[in-house]
Amino acid sequence: MPFVPDFTTPFRYRLNPHLAEVTPRARQWMLESDLVDDTHMLEYEMARIPELMAAAYPGASADDLLLSCDLMGIMFAIEDEDCGSHPRHSVAGIATRCKAMIQVMGGVDPGADDPVVLAFSDTWHRLCDGMSDTWVVRHRSSWKDFLDNHHTWEPVVVEKRGMPTLEDYLWERAYSSGMYVLYDWSERFSADRAEIPQPALEDPRLATLHRNCIYTIIAINDTHSLEREIRRNDPVPNLLKVLMHHERLTVEQSVERAKKMLADAIEEYLEVEFEYLAHWWRSGLPPRQMGAVEQRLRDMRNWTSSNCRWHCIVPRYDHVARDPERDRPGLPTQPAGRQGKDT
Amino acid sequence: MPFVPDFTTPFRYRLNPHLAEVTPRARQWMLESDLVDDTHMLEYEMARIPELMAAAYPGASADDLLLSCDLMGIMFAIEDEDCGSHPRHSVAGIATRCKAMIQVMGGVDPGADDPVVLAFSDTWHRLCDGMSDTWVVRHRSSWKDFLDNHHTWEPVVVEKRGMPTLEDYLWERAYSSGMYVLYDWSERFSADRAEIPQPALEDPRLATLHRNCIYTIIAINDTHSLEREIRRNDPVPNLLKVLMHHERLTVEQSVERAKKMLADAIEEYLEVEFEYLAHWWRSGLPPRQMGAVEQRLRDMRNWTSSNCRWHCIVPRYDHVARDPERDRPGLPTQPAGRQGKDT
Repeated sequence: MPFVPDFTTPFRYRLNPHLAEVTPRARQWMLESDLVDDTHMLEYEMARIPELMAAAYPGASADDLLLSCDLMGIMFAIEDEDCGSHPRHSVAGIATRCKAMIQVMGGVDPGADDPVVLAFSDTWHRLCDGMSDTWVVRHRSSWKDFLDNHHTWEPVVVEKRGMPTLEDYLWERAYSSGMYVLYDWSERFSADRAEIPQPALEDPRLATLHRNCIYTIIAINDTHSLEREIRRNDPVPNLLKVLMHHERLTVEQSVERAKKMLADAIEEYLEVEFEYLAHWWRSGLPPRQMGAVEQRLRDMRNWTSSNCRWHCIVPRYDHVARDPERDRPGLPTQPAGRQGKDT
Repeated sequence: MPFVPDFTTPFRYRLNPHLAEVTPRARQWMLESDLVDDTHMLEYEMARIPELMAAAYPGASADDLLLSCDLMGIMFAIEDEDCGSHPRHSVAGIATRCKAMIQVMGGVDPGADDPVVLAFSDTWHRLCDGMSDTWVVRHRSSWKDFLDNHHTWEPVVVEKRGMPTLEDYLWERAYSSGMYVLYDWSERFSADRAEIPQPALEDPRLATLHRNCIYTIIAINDTHSLEREIRRNDPVPNLLKVLMHHERLTVEQSVERAKKMLADAIEEYLEVEFEYLAHWWRSGLPPRQMGAVEQRLRDMRNWTSSNCRWHCIVPRYDHVARDPERDRPGLPTQPAGRQGKDT
């Protein structure tokens, strides 16, 4: 569309070498977990989740890349159901599911009612494998923030409280983006599963880096998704809607603001990344812990680059042509192991 | 001009707080050193040397910022004389001057014939102040490379050997840019004058960083200076001329290549900077030496940002409006201490 600019970032784009192997495995997992059916398979394919994750975690093993796709598939499934054009769930239903997912992380049995909760239980156990209790507690908290936001904010805020202010929007959107969950995976998906020590996690510079990486994602994603949200009469807020509403900007002016937000976020990211890294090296952290700190920064760069390029390859927003082989209804919905299930 | 795009870089732009104080001191030094006269003062002013240096070395002391301006004033003076529209010097004359400057660094008396050689002798002694013999030897070598290039390549190559290939052009232009001289100043202008240890200097990653920073400068500067060089019938080569000549590109196509060269250079710079810094921290260099390594990287970012923004404020290339107060002939050519000299 004419108002969508060519966003770019200065970070290298590289794909995980296991992408081709993992793509069908991730598709099969979505089917076997009952997270997509024939109707939703096209939407899932058009989201290009394996490509997004392969550039976000280019160094992950095949199993870890698959896990990242499965987890992102869960996020896709709940967003598609709860914020799509045909919501299946009432707000109370969304809250029930999110609370059940939070309980699963505390050890409660997932039950058999909701395939999302069941699938989440499977991925949660794979996620915790080999990680310290400290990391598990922290990661549970990241998921809780995401899930609480999911049932209290994104699908309901505009109808309940009106268009949020820019400040409120950026604050809440940071959680709804899922990025605080995804950041934790830099440790889980590294070869040695080394963890960032608490003082480096609590350094306010890291919060600034996290926020700026998220701003690059909001600026690009909200610009690309605006028309689709309008077309689907989707009640979720959007950066451009917020700017057009509160600052009475045209869509073109709000896109200019999004471009500036992207440039400013990258500039501040690079400033603070340099100082943060130098500070923790200088503090004498052991090399293994410094490796975890470095990996977090590499993955934020990777996320920034991956998200930006993903918008140039994903047909989801109708700004990129569909692949006639891959993006057609009903295919490939029947992997070998599932034939006959629906009979 | 329509073909000059809005180049941007992701690095923060910040000005040295001593800029306002240093600007008239630098102007006066140029006059007192006989490097500019009434005729050339307008050209000097329009080059906005203090602004360029203030963003390249934002943390330098006032005296060091002045020294950087004086040195850049010498580079300006010889480039303006030797590569301008009205060359004053024969090739033999240029060579004589460059060789005299090289001899001055070896301790030979500058004589009184050439104000450029005299002025260089003054700045050379200020440069060496407080630096180790190792740094002085290295810096002398950087100047020698620049000066040798200046009399054997830039003003003569096209007429003598025809339009250089892209590879040859980038190689030689790296020296003619003066950047290998300017890089050394990151150590001289830091508060503690700490020096980068030899192994970190010899790391091939640093050469890659140096080269990429230079590529950003070539891409932007050659695009901005093309028309002026054509208008002045300047025989110096230029990136766009090289591309148009050897690859039969239009000017617009060659500008697209320059834009891509800028983006690629920044992308590779950021990749390699991260790994270079992590490697030398990991190697256990003492903090003072690591401080010098970090400062070199900060200054390369600063140079990239400063050069880019300078092209948006400098009237030198006729792409920015002149300041009616500052950019007029004959002013300000007579500082207090020089009145009566020409009578």
